[in-house]
Amino acid sequence: MNDKKKKPQKLRARLPRGFVDRSAADIRAVDEMTAKIREVYERYGFDPVETPLFEYTDALGKFLPDSDRPNEGVFSLQDDDEQWMSARYDLTAPLARHVAENFNDIQLPYRTYRAGYVFRNEKPGPGRFRQFMQFDADTVGAAGVQADAEMCMMMADTMEALGIARGDYVIRVNNRKVLDGVLEAIGLGGDDNAGARLTVLRAIDKLDKFGPEGVKLLLGPGRKDESGDFTKGAGLNEAQIARLLDFVSLLQTAEAALDSHPLTQSPMPGISIDGPKAIRGAIFDTLHNNFKDSPTGVEGVFELKQIWQLVEAAGYGPDRIKIDPSVVRGLEYYTGPVFEAELQFAVTNEKGEKVVFGSVGGGGRYDGLVSRFMGQPVPATGFSIGVSRLMTALKNLGKLGTEEVVAPVVVCVMDRDIESLGKYQHFTQTLRHHGIRAEMYQGNKKNFGDQLKYADRRNAPLAIIQGGDERAHGLVQIKDLIEGKRLSGEIEDNAAWREARVAQVSVPEAELVEKVREMLAAQAEDRAQTRGL
Amino acid sequence: MNDKKKKPQKLRARLPRGFVDRSAADIRAVDEMTAKIREVYERYGFDPVETPLFEYTDALGKFLPDSDRPNEGVFSLQDDDEQWMSARYDLTAPLARHVAENFNDIQLPYRTYRAGYVFRNEKPGPGRFRQFMQFDADTVGAAGVQADAEMCMMMADTMEALGIARGDYVIRVNNRKVLDGVLEAIGLGGDDNAGARLTVLRAIDKLDKFGPEGVKLLLGPGRKDESGDFTKGAGLNEAQIARLLDFVSLLQTAEAALDSHPLTQSPMPGISIDGPKAIRGAIFDTLHNNFKDSPTGVEGVFELKQIWQLVEAAGYGPDRIKIDPSVVRGLEYYTGPVFEAELQFAVTNEKGEKVVFGSVGGGGRYDGLVSRFMGQPVPATGFSIGVSRLMTALKNLGKLGTEEVVAPVVVCVMDRDIESLGKYQHFTQTLRHHGIRAEMYQGNKKNFGDQLKYADRRNAPLAIIQGGDERAHGLVQIKDLIEGKRLSGEIEDNAAWREARVAQVSVPEAELVEKVREMLAAQAEDRAQTRGL
Repeated sequence: MNDKKKKPQKLRARLPRGFVDRSAADIRAVDEMTAKIREVYERYGFDPVETPLFEYTDALGKFLPDSDRPNEGVFSLQDDDEQWMSARYDLTAPLARHVAENFNDIQLPYRTYRAGYVFRNEKPGPGRFRQFMQFDADTVGAAGVQADAEMCMMMADTMEALGIARGDYVIRVNNRKVLDGVLEAIGLGGDDNAGARLTVLRAIDKLDKFGPEGVKLLLGPGRKDESGDFTKGAGLNEAQIARLLDFVSLLQTAEAALDSHPLTQSPMPGISIDGPKAIRGAIFDTLHNNFKDSPTGVEGVFELKQIWQLVEAAGYGPDRIKIDPSVVRGLEYYTGPVFEAELQFAVTNEKGEKVVFGSVGGGGRYDGLVSRFMGQPVPATGFSIGVSRLMTALKNLGKLGTEEVVAPVVVCVMDRDIESLGKYQHFTQTLRHHGIRAEMYQGNKKNFGDQLKYADRRNAPLAIIQGGDERAHGLVQIKDLIEGKRLSGEIEDNAAWREARVAQVSVPEAELVEKVREMLAAQAEDRAQTRGL
Repeated sequence: MNDKKKKPQKLRARLPRGFVDRSAADIRAVDEMTAKIREVYERYGFDPVETPLFEYTDALGKFLPDSDRPNEGVFSLQDDDEQWMSARYDLTAPLARHVAENFNDIQLPYRTYRAGYVFRNEKPGPGRFRQFMQFDADTVGAAGVQADAEMCMMMADTMEALGIARGDYVIRVNNRKVLDGVLEAIGLGGDDNAGARLTVLRAIDKLDKFGPEGVKLLLGPGRKDESGDFTKGAGLNEAQIARLLDFVSLLQTAEAALDSHPLTQSPMPGISIDGPKAIRGAIFDTLHNNFKDSPTGVEGVFELKQIWQLVEAAGYGPDRIKIDPSVVRGLEYYTGPVFEAELQFAVTNEKGEKVVFGSVGGGGRYDGLVSRFMGQPVPATGFSIGVSRLMTALKNLGKLGTEEVVAPVVVCVMDRDIESLGKYQHFTQTLRHHGIRAEMYQGNKKNFGDQLKYADRRNAPLAIIQGGDERAHGLVQIKDLIEGKRLSGEIEDNAAWREARVAQVSVPEAELVEKVREMLAAQAEDRAQTRGL
């Protein structure tokens, strides 16, 4: 390390760029949220498994989009045996390594989930961090689209378990093979064109952002943005671009038609033909016919249709899971169905504009990722939730942090001789052992007012006070710190009840716990009444 | 990265040395354990805060013991702006950075806790990993020993909350100043001798391991171990070594005397003088007198005495928290009280020997760590639990994994046409929506027996089966998979009850949920009865 050579300077306390500390409120909110997600995943038969934060660089592979950085988007370092290790950039590549390494011990199909930090060596920006948490679920060893259909339903159930109303979210589904089919049809099939296909897919992915004209430029010579930065294009010719855009517009039209004919949900459906279903079927046929020249495309449409039929049979209509041609997913390793969980309610962005909240996670089928290590094909599909984005969304909806965390009762330190300290410590421990959150004041302020100020900033519900006089008489004072704040409030229609509360009481030491309990209960009731008003 | 230059070879799935994957059972055990720890910390008035896994290398400082590796024990990498970052090696140094960086926004004293992974770039070995989890609690801005006393009591309460019986654990307390006092007395005082002092402390720390003769060598010229490896000694002269060993033996004698006069605990103690207390007082006086030539030593003894008085006043006798001269703690940054949580029950080690389980965590006062960044002193004290070691201990005691996790009900796939798949999917979703853990078989085995084998290995409680005949009649079969296993068991005195159970039943589709519930309840009762036998 070369920092030894630099001349010494005052040590500055600062985080590396793109990294953040997490506050108590954020931690509690994430814990509350992940517990709810976990409950759904467990119910779906998934079990936890976890991999470490570092992997050998070659085991991770290079599947990241936008690899415009020296380390190709990952944080890497050389171990002392010269091997390169990297901090994981997602939870999928490490899971593939885990399955391959333990293949003989794992019972397939293998349903697992995990929450963990991932790292991207990217330029940090507003809302763009270099460490963030993902919550993934994967099924390895399940080749059929029923596994992809299950992922979509599980995500829909997860959104609802988190309190997001039906209509406020949608799981959008597409299939890489459908897109690959068109690419095949315009001469971009085969392994040699894998890179070109990815460039094209990422261009199409920008449809919402740049519109058809922008995508046209990205498919052709390239596009200059407002700041003058130039993004190199895919270099397709006009005929290729025209066919691609035609197809995208065909899919959009089809989807609009599907949207306008919602399926009625039957509680125990056989697959009987009714009006909207016939229309859907016809649309799938049209798509299908579009792929006469591409077996991959035919397969993709067929798989999409199967997913539609499976989720519908289980009672999930297009208000929850819908086929959407604009879903691409930037990662190279997807091979079949791809999905995205989108929140559809409006929020105000940093420019003050109303925008749809957008994606909070996505995933897809990655049949090639485990096979890289094996002599045999190992199909897999998975879904990844962006934890902090979803948390932001839930906070916007007022769905998090509703569980109340009451701050500790503060035992004031009036005298600092060891005998007095021992008594304060004893009061504190006694409260704690009776399940009451409590702390003895540990700071250096000797002044009583300063200690109360601390308790107040800490949002403490009560302060326990015992000076020399009280000690001599075996008494202790309990001060209601919420009462003071509340008196300055404007709740007037509740006056009779409030009068029953006393801001400060003196009780014998032996009655401390009982009285504290009573006062905390009164405060809790007070809060409940206030919420009820 | 230079791995591009190497010739391509078959990709091997393997973890970097010293890193491990975590199983579902381990994850659930740690979650159960950390939830209990968190509950205690919250009750003590601590709130969570979390820092990222990377910090600037200079912000972490170099406080690791045994820095015999090129990177000085840490994993480091250079950011693209040339600054060195390191993966954190503990949770204390990052907390110090966090407090210093946000000093104006933080309300002192600041009680916080956090669980997280730390990384050591060390030679991996059995039970020695390069990524492991710590669970820390710290109080920043509390200068008095009452904060250290609180740490010790919180650790004692944590051990008991985890189900470790009183007597099976002890919190051992010492004070760096006591040891520093002796070092001062033998001419090793002052900043210039900080390195030498640490070498001496680490030698004394090896007392349990190498005995007085081994420590003597480590304090003097050095020690060669059985494998022939030589550890350089502190290079002290004979007089210095003699005084050090005398002192250690004095402390051990004192502690033995304290142990043989346990204090009776009074529920609401004033500090009245009784027999054992007088003896304790006399011993502290003796220690005190030993330090006529060292103000630091005097301070250390005084602080130890205060901790003893404070924890005793709160009802914690030496069966829970005891003064112990052998506690050193290898980290350089400790400045006052140091503590260690030791489990005292015996376990069998890898050599088949009965040994005391030993330390599961420790900590101490580190008044200099935050101040490194500040123009002012910022006192702090904390405690760190080694999560996987403690988990191992609790598993040994049978205190973890007692909450039962029931595997999912498996819905078999008898027919693979889309209509049948839709029905299986619908059954699965219906069970899930009624809160029953369930999964549809997603593998490629078409044979019914193979699917049952999967369900069996998965430990599934029930299998749901519907072939063409049943489907035609709207029926579904439910097979009790536990019953088969149980029949081969030896519970005989329960025969009448068992006869009421049927291994396979056929019910109308509409009664699926109800019947599954009933059969799962019967199994749960069965398990409860078996446990009760």
